[in-house]
Amino acid sequence: MVAFIAVDWGTTNRRAFLIKDGRVVATERDDRGAATVPAGAYEAEVAGIRARLGDVPVLLAGMVGSNIGWRSVPYVAAPAGLADVAAALERIDDRTAIVPGLSYRDGLHADVMRGEEVQLLGAVAADLVPPDALLCQPGTHCKWATVEGGRITKFTTAMTGELFALLRAHGVLSRQLGHPVEPGSAFLDGVAEGAKRDLAASLFAIRARGVLGLADDRHAASFASGLLIGADTAARIGHGATVHILADAALGALYASAIDALSGTAHHIDSQVAFVAGITRIQDLAA
Amino acid sequence: MVAFIAVDWGTTNRRAFLIKDGRVVATERDDRGAATVPAGAYEAEVAGIRARLGDVPVLLAGMVGSNIGWRSVPYVAAPAGLADVAAALERIDDRTAIVPGLSYRDGLHADVMRGEEVQLLGAVAADLVPPDALLCQPGTHCKWATVEGGRITKFTTAMTGELFALLRAHGVLSRQLGHPVEPGSAFLDGVAEGAKRDLAASLFAIRARGVLGLADDRHAASFASGLLIGADTAARIGHGATVHILADAALGALYASAIDALSGTAHHIDSQVAFVAGITRIQDLAA
Repeated sequence: MVAFIAVDWGTTNRRAFLIKDGRVVATERDDRGAATVPAGAYEAEVAGIRARLGDVPVLLAGMVGSNIGWRSVPYVAAPAGLADVAAALERIDDRTAIVPGLSYRDGLHADVMRGEEVQLLGAVAADLVPPDALLCQPGTHCKWATVEGGRITKFTTAMTGELFALLRAHGVLSRQLGHPVEPGSAFLDGVAEGAKRDLAASLFAIRARGVLGLADDRHAASFASGLLIGADTAARIGHGATVHILADAALGALYASAIDALSGTAHHIDSQVAFVAGITRIQDLAA
Repeated sequence: MVAFIAVDWGTTNRRAFLIKDGRVVATERDDRGAATVPAGAYEAEVAGIRARLGDVPVLLAGMVGSNIGWRSVPYVAAPAGLADVAAALERIDDRTAIVPGLSYRDGLHADVMRGEEVQLLGAVAADLVPPDALLCQPGTHCKWATVEGGRITKFTTAMTGELFALLRAHGVLSRQLGHPVEPGSAFLDGVAEGAKRDLAASLFAIRARGVLGLADDRHAASFASGLLIGADTAARIGHGATVHILADAALGALYASAIDALSGTAHHIDSQVAFVAGITRIQDLAA
């Protein structure tokens, strides 16, 4: 197997891996995400990555394939597995390609992802999760994917992290939400309230409890986070569900805590191992 | 009956009425809401109102009684009627008083209102709604009040309007939500989606439908409004419910449309008539 470079190129960050025989031998991470790289600068950016990591084939995933990236690559419609993704690579030249994202439709509901599909399908490819599973990748836009027979058959994005950020930065609750989010009783109270799935009212109650002196504002951010994550999780899982989480430790622990409180079981999956497994499989399939 | 001046003094606006024998004989409206009047300036502001409308007793309601107003007046706990409100007036001097707001608690849920109680209870006092009814006052913070035997027994505030404003001004959907909100099929599609009560996911789908070219962004604001109002309404009413709406015509029509779509019946109540009836009854009870 020849070496190649995989780039997980998001909106705000980018991470590049030099991979040989399925193992990472060098890596770099910076903040040159798609939002900061002008459309005409990608060729030079990729040349720079090759100069630093090695003059080998490059496979790019994430927002680099969107309308704010190098080239807008059509989505592959779910159900889709790694073979479908590999078959739809966008070739820039014979040594450089972009991984397409996935789309999903179900009546009025529609959804898209770009980049997450590599981790999610890679987790299955690496046998980190079974071929039939529910996966969750929390974040600004939290992805929940149902995998059946190793393919993503449906998925839902919830803008849970974005709503929290908006409420913390603007509006009537912003004064109360400045403290750090911590797991614990305030977070779990929020999860229980969130399970009612009545966000607009439960959010206002944060203000009311503060005004009435019923709750200490030091815990308001933890409660609000529990509320949003609880509403998200309650909409996605039934009693006894098993969820495989791909996230950093802190956010992963919060989702695991909410899943546990809602009578589910959470397993943590190493996101980087999943990404490397997924992108290596795509590279092999496309070779 | 002597004349008096009633002031509906909100955060951003204020409206004053000279009332004689229960009828409005003069009125003024300006943008000198509580957010713009310094704490020490209220006495002069009220003197100004008296100079313009008449040298008579003054009854103030709304955010003027909050910690951003003249004086922070303790809330009256629901269940409460106009007699409870009148009994708890905050006297500034023998001709000037502030109407207290209401608070409500039910386990973890807590709620507050300031000013809306005059309209809501006034609607009952004026026989505009029956003594047992569900009332809705849409807005930035939409109030839903259950009235039993003419008293507010419980109420819920949903920050439906604020969420819409936050999403329109900031974040990933802001580019799509600039168009005016209109009643019609996009709004009703939003109501149907909102009834699923899965806001964070339904909101992201607005972006996904835009990206995939499945929906015209000209209708995105109407859909988003329907989504938020639909989720709010679905959490509040069951099949066959009757809701009495106190709102301006445009916003009232949107809520009525959502209530109708969710198998309820909406009646429109004149907010000003309700306010004048409520504040006049409080003045009579306190005399």
